[in-house]
Amino acid sequence: MKRIEEANREALRRILAGEPVGVDVVPAAQAIPALGERTILHAGPPLAWERMCGPLRGAVTGIAVFEGWANTLDDAERQAAAGAFAFHPNHHFGAVGPMAGVTTASQPVLVVENRTFGNRAFCTLNEGLGKVLRYGGNDAEVLDRLRWIRDVLGPALGRALRETGGIALKPLMARGLAMGDEMHQRNVACSSLLVRQLAPALAATARSGAELVACLTFLGANDMFFLNFAMAAAKALMDAAAGIAGSCVVTVMCRNGTDFGIRVSGTGDQWFTAPAEMPTGIYFPGFGERDANPDIGDSAIVETMGLGAFAMAAAPAVVDFLGGGRASQASAFTRAMAGIVVGANPAWTIAAMDFAGVPTGIDIRLVVESGVAPIINTGIAHREPGVGQVGAGMVKAPLRCFEQALVAFAQAMGVA
Amino acid sequence: MKRIEEANREALRRILAGEPVGVDVVPAAQAIPALGERTILHAGPPLAWERMCGPLRGAVTGIAVFEGWANTLDDAERQAAAGAFAFHPNHHFGAVGPMAGVTTASQPVLVVENRTFGNRAFCTLNEGLGKVLRYGGNDAEVLDRLRWIRDVLGPALGRALRETGGIALKPLMARGLAMGDEMHQRNVACSSLLVRQLAPALAATARSGAELVACLTFLGANDMFFLNFAMAAAKALMDAAAGIAGSCVVTVMCRNGTDFGIRVSGTGDQWFTAPAEMPTGIYFPGFGERDANPDIGDSAIVETMGLGAFAMAAAPAVVDFLGGGRASQASAFTRAMAGIVVGANPAWTIAAMDFAGVPTGIDIRLVVESGVAPIINTGIAHREPGVGQVGAGMVKAPLRCFEQALVAFAQAMGVA
Repeated sequence: MKRIEEANREALRRILAGEPVGVDVVPAAQAIPALGERTILHAGPPLAWERMCGPLRGAVTGIAVFEGWANTLDDAERQAAAGAFAFHPNHHFGAVGPMAGVTTASQPVLVVENRTFGNRAFCTLNEGLGKVLRYGGNDAEVLDRLRWIRDVLGPALGRALRETGGIALKPLMARGLAMGDEMHQRNVACSSLLVRQLAPALAATARSGAELVACLTFLGANDMFFLNFAMAAAKALMDAAAGIAGSCVVTVMCRNGTDFGIRVSGTGDQWFTAPAEMPTGIYFPGFGERDANPDIGDSAIVETMGLGAFAMAAAPAVVDFLGGGRASQASAFTRAMAGIVVGANPAWTIAAMDFAGVPTGIDIRLVVESGVAPIINTGIAHREPGVGQVGAGMVKAPLRCFEQALVAFAQAMGVA
Repeated sequence: MKRIEEANREALRRILAGEPVGVDVVPAAQAIPALGERTILHAGPPLAWERMCGPLRGAVTGIAVFEGWANTLDDAERQAAAGAFAFHPNHHFGAVGPMAGVTTASQPVLVVENRTFGNRAFCTLNEGLGKVLRYGGNDAEVLDRLRWIRDVLGPALGRALRETGGIALKPLMARGLAMGDEMHQRNVACSSLLVRQLAPALAATARSGAELVACLTFLGANDMFFLNFAMAAAKALMDAAAGIAGSCVVTVMCRNGTDFGIRVSGTGDQWFTAPAEMPTGIYFPGFGERDANPDIGDSAIVETMGLGAFAMAAAPAVVDFLGGGRASQASAFTRAMAGIVVGANPAWTIAAMDFAGVPTGIDIRLVVESGVAPIINTGIAHREPGVGQVGAGMVKAPLRCFEQALVAFAQAMGVA
């Protein structure tokens, strides 16, 4: 239908026209005024405590202790079961979070502004690898690191970003694509470019030499630091393409470890969900499939925007890391994803494919017709609370989400 | 001959066994005690003032003013013509320099130690792009920057490197290869990784906040900063493979803008030279082939070691930058170079070629038999002094150097 094609073209136009700029780091309560006491935002579509998976429960209880709403993890669990906390998806507040993705009032969040459309998106700061809250870790080491991020790193990054006037993320990510990042499971290039660009401002605005050294040391050891920037940029870009009547372009893909959920431009805030799939990939020594939690995290917003597995051709090394087959065949993933999108992004190109743009704007009709599900590069969390990451791999978005969405979209269009 | 195969295996073994570590930055006079007053080291094989090309003359006169040996560029030129300066190749002193590559007493040099064999190599610090000494620039802007490098950046980097105990360059360069650097005409990944790794030590040892900000700002804007690290690492690695009786592996390729010169392990310090070729490539706006100087610089040590054009498959984006054809065909260059070497480097692999090691150890016999000349990625200098870079491209090593070397090698082996 011509009306759908036009609406999808408009969705693509808005995605491509966006200019995401990292402008600040502030406490989540400041970025999201609606975020009150005892409110916990989480990754993926809406979910009650009773259905939450292990790593999400681990993160929820950990953050309740961190916020001072509970004295112990057990206390937090009892309170959660008793309904003491309000749970909402990040996506209901313009936010995203990797893996468990819990966001609460006092955590610092990165603020990314889409300068073209004026909308803003938020994401917590990346904690690094190992035992971390987003993978369900919640012991003293995890909470101490979160306190340091709240008290030292967050304010330092906020000062530095304000000092620079904002870091334009689109050109930085374009460079990262030419440097082997797909910006989901490989972020070492963008993380390094970001540190190199921010370091002068960090130095110029440091509260003390010791704090500066601590921040630069943390950033220097965290290859995934940029992931949360990429996610907030993606959210800022995709939000601008939401709510276009007649468009069947996907604006959100996300998972909470129990359900996978998508949103489509022309059907607005409605969620279409299905059980989250199990990733396949490579496990860290001592772990295996039996330890894995189903797919979790808002990070699939990166694929929704055309990066991650969609840009696999730019990052042959990540194919090996994810157990995805031969690195030299990385472009096969990108070519497959090109079959289910409405266009390509000329600002984000892949040198190894002679500067073809990344596939952008998933069309639910093409997914359902072809049976080709979007591929997502992902970390794998242990299914029990408190353990952490056990591997990395790939996972497919459940076709059922797209089938449901297509039915609802057809109804909205008056054709079903 | 079995004796040659064994000697070449030993050369390869030494190249692969090397562990280059950036340990310090010190004035050249301290690194190279033999470097006296009015001594100017230059890129490439030996060359008298009379035969020096424009950009080398530009750099020589500029550095003479910088060192206080001349009052003006004209004065420096008169003195040079009158024999007031001693000219020697960097390679005669364990040093290398990009493009004109002039090294004099008070310039700071990076010190790279090959921890396996104990030898050290030296290289001046990269000045950035634009009008710079190594491309023959020599005006106040160029000399002022050199003074800042001498007085601020060099000492700061020296303190930082000593604070870290040394930066291991082999693993850093391995990461760079997975991030689109071939470490000759693309160094943005390694430059970023280096800054990220050095920043905490730079901050911890800074003399003042203002100096720290200035250093981080300079490093943040210089995508080619790592080139000189790669060159010093290559020199430190290749020197360990020099002087092996019976080996016909190339240990040096370099150019002074007039002549191209090579050295071969089994023939020791002997130079084999031929006229330098003209690069072909892409020119900056307003410049063209008529402006170009013949091939110049010690930076071909990077190719001698297996990177640069030899690792083109790792850096598809650079093919486009150099005017080398389709980016997707980058691996054709690497495969061609694999035909003229004795082995591959398992520590430096190319993801896009399913982690094949970079082709390492050029065998002069294979070059002469196949007629396949080593390819070199290079910047292009204006042929007149004082102008600077006008483009970037590729150039071939003259076959004549390898033919001469083969004759001398055969004589040394008693077979000619």
